Amino acid sequence: MLLHLSTWPEVETYLSHSTGIILPIGSTEQHGPTGLIGTDAICAEAIARGTGEATHAIVSPTLNVGMALHHMAFPGTISFRPSTLINVITDYITSLARHGFNKFFFINGHGGNIATLKAAFAETYAHLGDLQLPNANLVQCQVGNWFMCRSVYKLAKELYGDQEGSHATPSEVAVTQYLYPEAIKQATLSEEVAKGYPIYGAADFRRHYPDGRMGSNPALATPEHGKQLYELAVKDLSQSYLEFVNPT
Amino acid sequence: MLLHLSTWPEVETYLSHSTGIILPIGSTEQHGPTGLIGTDAICAEAIARGTGEATHAIVSPTLNVGMALHHMAFPGTISFRPSTLINVITDYITSLARHGFNKFFFINGHGGNIATLKAAFAETYAHLGDLQLPNANLVQCQVGNWFMCRSVYKLAKELYGDQEGSHATPSEVAVTQYLYPEAIKQATLSEEVAKGYPIYGAADFRRHYPDGRMGSNPALATPEHGKQLYELAVKDLSQSYLEFVNPT
Amino acid sequence: MLLHLSTWPEVETYLSHSTGIILPIGSTEQHGPTGLIGTDAICAEAIARGTGEATHAIVSPTLNVGMALHHMAFPGTISFRPSTLINVITDYITSLARHGFNKFFFINGHGGNIATLKAAFAETYAHLGDLQLPNANLVQCQVGNWFMCRSVYKLAKELYGDQEGSHATPSEVAVTQYLYPEAIKQATLSEEVAKGYPIYGAADFRRHYPDGRMGSNPALATPEHGKQLYELAVKDLSQSYLEFVNPT
Amino acid sequence: MLLHLSTWPEVETYLSHSTGIILPIGSTEQHGPTGLIGTDAICAEAIARGTGEATHAIVSPTLNVGMALHHMAFPGTISFRPSTLINVITDYITSLARHGFNKFFFINGHGGNIATLKAAFAETYAHLGDLQLPNANLVQCQVGNWFMCRSVYKLAKELYGDQEGSHATPSEVAVTQYLYPEAIKQATLSEEVAKGYPIYGAADFRRHYPDGRMGSNPALATPEHGKQLYELAVKDLSQSYLEFVNPT
Amino acid sequence: MLLHLSTWPEVETYLSHSTGIILPIGSTEQHGPTGLIGTDAICAEAIARGTGEATHAIVSPTLNVGMALHHMAFPGTISFRPSTLINVITDYITSLARHGFNKFFFINGHGGNIATLKAAFAETYAHLGDLQLPNANLVQCQVGNWFMCRSVYKLAKELYGDQEGSHATPSEVAVTQYLYPEAIKQATLSEEVAKGYPIYGAADFRRHYPDGRMGSNPALATPEHGKQLYELAVKDLSQSYLEFVNPT
Amino acid sequence: MLLHLSTWPEVETYLSHSTGIILPIGSTEQHGPTGLIGTDAICAEAIARGTGEATHAIVSPTLNVGMALHHMAFPGTISFRPSTLINVITDYITSLARHGFNKFFFINGHGGNIATLKAAFAETYAHLGDLQLPNANLVQCQVGNWFMCRSVYKLAKELYGDQEGSHATPSEVAVTQYLYPEAIKQATLSEEVAKGYPIYGAADFRRHYPDGRMGSNPALATPEHGKQLYELAVKDLSQSYLEFVNPT
Repeated sequence: MLLHLSTWPEVETYLSHSTGIILPIGSTEQHGPTGLIGTDAICAEAIARGTGEATHAIVSPTLNVGMALHHMAFPGTISFRPSTLINVITDYITSLARHGFNKFFFINGHGGNIATLKAAFAETYAHLGDLQLPNANLVQCQVGNWFMCRSVYKLAKELYGDQEGSHATPSEVAVTQYLYPEAIKQATLSEEVAKGYPIYGAADFRRHYPDGRMGSNPALATPEHGKQLYELAVKDLSQSYLEFVNPT
Repeated sequence: MLLHLSTWPEVETYLSHSTGIILPIGSTEQHGPTGLIGTDAICAEAIARGTGEATHAIVSPTLNVGMALHHMAFPGTISFRPSTLINVITDYITSLARHGFNKFFFINGHGGNIATLKAAFAETYAHLGDLQLPNANLVQCQVGNWFMCRSVYKLAKELYGDQEGSHATPSEVAVTQYLYPEAIKQATLSEEVAKGYPIYGAADFRRHYPDGRMGSNPALATPEHGKQLYELAVKDLSQSYLEFVNPT
Repeated sequence: MLLHLSTWPEVETYLSHSTGIILPIGSTEQHGPTGLIGTDAICAEAIARGTGEATHAIVSPTLNVGMALHHMAFPGTISFRPSTLINVITDYITSLARHGFNKFFFINGHGGNIATLKAAFAETYAHLGDLQLPNANLVQCQVGNWFMCRSVYKLAKELYGDQEGSHATPSEVAVTQYLYPEAIKQATLSEEVAKGYPIYGAADFRRHYPDGRMGSNPALATPEHGKQLYELAVKDLSQSYLEFVNPT
Repeated sequence: MLLHLSTWPEVETYLSHSTGIILPIGSTEQHGPTGLIGTDAICAEAIARGTGEATHAIVSPTLNVGMALHHMAFPGTISFRPSTLINVITDYITSLARHGFNKFFFINGHGGNIATLKAAFAETYAHLGDLQLPNANLVQCQVGNWFMCRSVYKLAKELYGDQEGSHATPSEVAVTQYLYPEAIKQATLSEEVAKGYPIYGAADFRRHYPDGRMGSNPALATPEHGKQLYELAVKDLSQSYLEFVNPT
Repeated sequence: MLLHLSTWPEVETYLSHSTGIILPIGSTEQHGPTGLIGTDAICAEAIARGTGEATHAIVSPTLNVGMALHHMAFPGTISFRPSTLINVITDYITSLARHGFNKFFFINGHGGNIATLKAAFAETYAHLGDLQLPNANLVQCQVGNWFMCRSVYKLAKELYGDQEGSHATPSEVAVTQYLYPEAIKQATLSEEVAKGYPIYGAADFRRHYPDGRMGSNPALATPEHGKQLYELAVKDLSQSYLEFVNPT
Repeated sequence: MLLHLSTWPEVETYLSHSTGIILPIGSTEQHGPTGLIGTDAICAEAIARGTGEATHAIVSPTLNVGMALHHMAFPGTISFRPSTLINVITDYITSLARHGFNKFFFINGHGGNIATLKAAFAETYAHLGDLQLPNANLVQCQVGNWFMCRSVYKLAKELYGDQEGSHATPSEVAVTQYLYPEAIKQATLSEEVAKGYPIYGAADFRRHYPDGRMGSNPALATPEHGKQLYELAVKDLSQSYLEFVNPT
C-alpha cells in the first residue's frame, strides 16, 4: 500500500490495524561514470515498495535527497546539510506520529545517510517527548540498509569479489539496470580505481576518487544480477520489518 | 532528461549548453475522501517531466513533501514546517548552483507551498551572495503553478464551473486518474460541501472542512479530463520555462 | 487604543471584551530618488492607527523592518532574512496569544512581506499547538495590505494610470506626503523608468531598476491625494478588521 | 536626520562623511499600574532622536520590542526570545554594514536588553568576518543606556531617592509624561512595594512583584522632571556618541 | 560531591535533600604571553570544587569552552558563538531540571561569558515553561564570578594595584600557578601594556592588545597569592551559594 | 602537550611543526548502579592525554557532555540534542582550523556520540568551505573509539566474555577504577541483566534496562584490568593518530 496512492480514510483504516510504516530514503549524487545520479533513491524506493507489498505495510513517498556533501564536487549531486536532514526527518516522523504511526522503518540506499539518520532519530524521540504526544514513548525508528543485508552482501561478494568496491558498486548499478533497463549507460572505465581512502570533504573526495568510483567496477553489473539482488533485499528486509513491528 | 536517470558526465555536458533546471514540488496531504494523498506530488512530477521533455530541460527528483500544516488533522498528511522547507529549498538550490545551474523553475502542485517557496527564494539569493558563489548574481527562481495556468484554469471552469472548488478539485483528481487509473477511488460524497472559509490552523481547518474538500466535487473528474488538463499544463509551462531561461 | 500608550491593567480590561489586535508592519527600504526609506512603515503605522481608532481596536507597536533583501543594493535598506522574520512574527504572536489575543490583523505596507508573513502564520499556528496554549486552536492571522484595498487601487489608477507602477508608487509617496509634509523630497526623475522585470536578488534588482523605482512616477504624488488614499484605506481595512473579528 | 524620513541618495551622501548611526532600542512590556507598556521604546526613541539632532547623526527606526521574557506574566508584554533578538540585531547591523556603516550606537531603554545586545554584538562581529565584508574589522557596536547616564542617575536620586526603584521607575515614567502628556495615567498604588528580589522566570517575577513595580514609586513623576531627565540624557549620550565615532 | 564521580543512585539520593548544583564554566582562550589558555576553566573548576566541598553541593563537569570570539586572533583560542553557547546552556539546564534540579549556580571564570549566560538563562526559563516541566517555575540560575568577589577584588588591588589590569591578570595567573605549579611560564613582557580600549571583534582586539594582555602585569603573580585568592573566592562563593539555595 | 596548560605563543610554535590535535570527547550519563556518571569523559580524557604524551601531540580540553538523550530517564545524565552537539563540534573545529589545525583526532568514550560526530564532521567540512578558509580542503576529522580498539576489545572478551555487555561495561568501569581508585563504588547488582534490546527513546530505554546496565557485569572490573586496558588503548590510538597525521 503506497501512501501517495491512498486516501486519508484509507490511511485511517490502515492505522486501525497497524502502526508501522516503511520510508524509502535515497540520495541524489554522482555514482561514477556509468551509475545513475538517482541510484540510491531508485534502489531504496523499489525495494521499499517490494517490502511493503510483501508485508502489507504502507510505504511513504521517497526521500530523494540525503546527506551527500562529500559528493558535491561532481555535477548533479544535491545534498542536505546534516542539520537540514535532521529537521526533515523530524518533520516526517512528527507528522506521522501525530496520526498514530509508531514504527518507522527507513529503507536506506546510501551509506552516507546512516549517521545523520541515527542522530535525527535521537533528536526526534526527544522532540516527541517535548511535544507530549500521547504515543511519544512508543515511537521507534530503525534503518534497514538494503546493501548491508546479509544475503545481498553475500551475493555481491560472489558475483564481484573485490570489484564490488564501496561506491558506484556493481550491485547497486545492477539493481538500477533491472529497474530502468532503458537507462543503462556505457563509458570507458579506467582499469585502475582508487580505494580505501577515508571520506572527508568534497574537494578531498574528488582529488582521491577522480571519476567518482570507490574501488568498484560497475561494468560487471547486469540487469539479471539486479533482479536477484532486489529479490534478496526485499526478502531480508521484509523479515526485518516484521520483526520490528511485531517483536517476539 | 531526468537528473536521477543521468550520470554526472551527462550533467556536465548538459551544463555546457544550458543552466536551466525544472524542479517538481508537490505535497503529501489529504485530498478529500477520494483524492490521493500524493495528488500534488503526482501532478507536479508528471507535468514537470512532460515539460522537461518538451523543452529538453533537465528535471530534478520530485520534492514529495511541502508545506501542508493546515491539513495535519487528517491522517496521512506529512508536512514540513515552513522553516524546514526554507532550508530544504536553500540546500537544493545551493547544491545545484555550485554546479553552475542558474535558472530554477519549480513546477508546483500545491497552493500552500507558494508563500514559503517565495520566502525561500529570497533567503537563498542572500545565502548565495554570502557564499560569494561566482554565479550568485545570476541565480533566478520561478514558480510555475500548473493549476493556475491560464488554459488549465479555463478548461477547469468549463468542465466543472463552481464545483471546481479550491482543494481536492476535480481537475487535480482528474490528472491523477489519467496518470494512475489503477488508483481511482470511490466514496460517497456529501452533496453539500463547505467553501470560502479562510485557512488558519489544522484543527480549525478540519472543523470547517470535515471531509477535507474545499468547495469541490471531485466526482466529476474523469481520466480523459485529466489527459486534457495535463497536456494544457505541459504546453503552458513549457512556454513559461523557455521564456524564463531565454528572456527576450 | 495604542498598546504602547496603555498600561497592563488597561490591556487586561481590553481583553475582557475583545481578543483582536492590529499590528502594523512596514519595511525600511529604498523607495526611489524621492520616496522615504520608511515609506512602508509610515503608511502601515498611520493607517493601522486610523483603523484602530475607527474600530476601537488595540494597535501594537509598528514592525519597522520587514523582508526587503531585494532592495539591499541601495544604501539605507535594512532587511530581515525571511527566517529571521518568521521568528520575529512567531515571537510577537506567541507573546500576545499567551495573554489571550486570538485575532491578529496585520496591516501591511510592503508587498515583499506577504509571502514571509503567510509562511510565518503557518509556522506559528503549529508552534502554538506544540505549546498546547489553551487558545491555540482559536488563533487566526490575516494580512490587510492597504495598497491592495479595492478603493485605494481604484483611486490610484484614476489618479496615476500606468504611472502608478509597482514600487515607489505615487500613491504610497502621497500618503507619506500627507503624513510628513515636512519631508517632501525633490529630485529630477528620469522620464523613462524600467518596469515589468521580475524580482530576484539585490544586485539583479538594481541592475534592472537603477534608481529604485519600478515603473512609477512618484512626482505625481500630492499630500491631498495622500489624504484621500489614507482615508479610503482606513475605511476599507476597518471593515475588513470588523469582519475578521466578528465573522458572520 | 531620521533614516525613515530620508531617501537612499540622502543616505549615500551621509555615508560620504560619516559611518556612524544611532539605533534606538526599547521594549514592549508592563511598567506597573501607571507606566506605559511602550515606556522603554518611547524613551529610547525620543532620546535617540534628540541625540541625533545634537550630533548630526542619522537615527534608525526604533526597535520597539526587546528581551522582556520576565515580564510575560503581565498582559500586553511582547518579547523576543534572546535567540531571536540576536538574529534581529545581526540582520540590522549586517544590512547597514553592507552600505558602509561602521559605528553602531544603540540607545537603549531597557536593562533587560543589555546582555542579549552584547551577545548579539559578538555574534555579529564574527558573522561579518565570515561574510568577508570589506569593513568587517571596522565595525564597532556600543550600547548607551540612557537611564544609566551619570547625570540622569544623579538627578533621579535627588528627585526620588530610594523610591526610584529599578522598574517602572518615576524617572522613566516622567520622561514618557513629558513626551506624551495626553497619556498620563492614574491608579492607586500600594504604599508597600517589593524590591531587591532577583529576576528569574516570568511566573516567579509576578509572584514577587505582583503589580509589576520593582521598588519604585512612579507617582512621584512629573512631566517637568521628564523634560530635565530627557535633556540630561541627550547631552550625555551626545558626548558618548561623538567620542565613539571620533575616538581621540 | 562531583557529579562525574557519582553514580545515578547517588544523584537520586542527593536530590532527595537538595535541588542545588554548582556548574563551573570557563573559557579556552589566550591569556597573554605567560597565562595558560585554560586559565578561566582551571580557576572556575577548582573554585567550584572547593565551593562544592564547603557546601556539600554537587558539582557538574566543567564547561571548558565559553564565549571568546574576541580572542580568536590568537592561536589556541576555542570559542562558541553566543548562539551555540545559549543552546549548550539550555541543554545543560534542561537535562538537569528534568531530574529535579532547580537551583543552578554557575561559577564563572571569564568575563566574556556573562552576557551570553544571562541571555541563556532567559531563553531557558522560557523553554522550560514551553516544555511544561513540573518544576519550570522553580528553576533559578545565578552566575558567581570568582574574580568579582569582593574579597578577591580587594586583595588583587592590594597586591597588584593598577597592574591587575583586566585580562591575563596577575590574580588569575596566580590561581593557576597555585593549582598547576608545574605549568608556570616565563616570558619577557613588554613594560608598556595597552589598556582601556573597548572590546569589539577579534582582529580589532589584537590590533590594540598585541600580546593579549589588557593592562595587566602577570609577572607579579605567585603561587602563594594564588592560594590566598583561591581561598577567598571559595569562601565568598560558598556563602553566595548557600544564600542562593536557602534564601532567607 | 595540553592545550589548556599552554600559552598562545607555545601553540604558535607547535603549529609550526604539526597541524594535528587530539580532542577527548565523553559523555555525562548514568553507567549503572556502580559506574560513574563521568565514565566516558574520564576514560576519553585520560586515554587522550596518554596518547598525546606518546605522540607529542597537543590535546584539547575535554568535551565532557555528549549525545546521551537515551539515558535521560536516569538522574544525573546531561545530554546535548544532536543539533546542539553539531554546533558545538562545528565551533570547536572552526576555531582551531582558523589557527591552522587541519587534523582533528577525536578520542571518544561513548558509542552514542559516533553518529552525531560523523554528521558534525560533514556539516563542518561544508561550513569551512563556505567560509573559504585557506585550509578548508585540508581539514580532516577522525574518531578513535578507545573501547573499539582491537586490542582493548580482545582483552575485554578474555577477561569478561559475555559479561562485558554494551553499557556500564566492566572494561570501562575498570579504567575509571584505575584512574580514580578513591571512587570505586559498591552496590548489589541483580544477577540477571537485560541485553540485546535496541536503543530508542529515554523512557523506553529505562523500561528495558531498569538499572542502566546493558548486559554487563561491572562487578568483574578491577583497577588492574583498568591499567591494562588503558595502556592498550593508548598504544593502539597512538598508532592510529600517527597514521592519521602522517599517512603513508
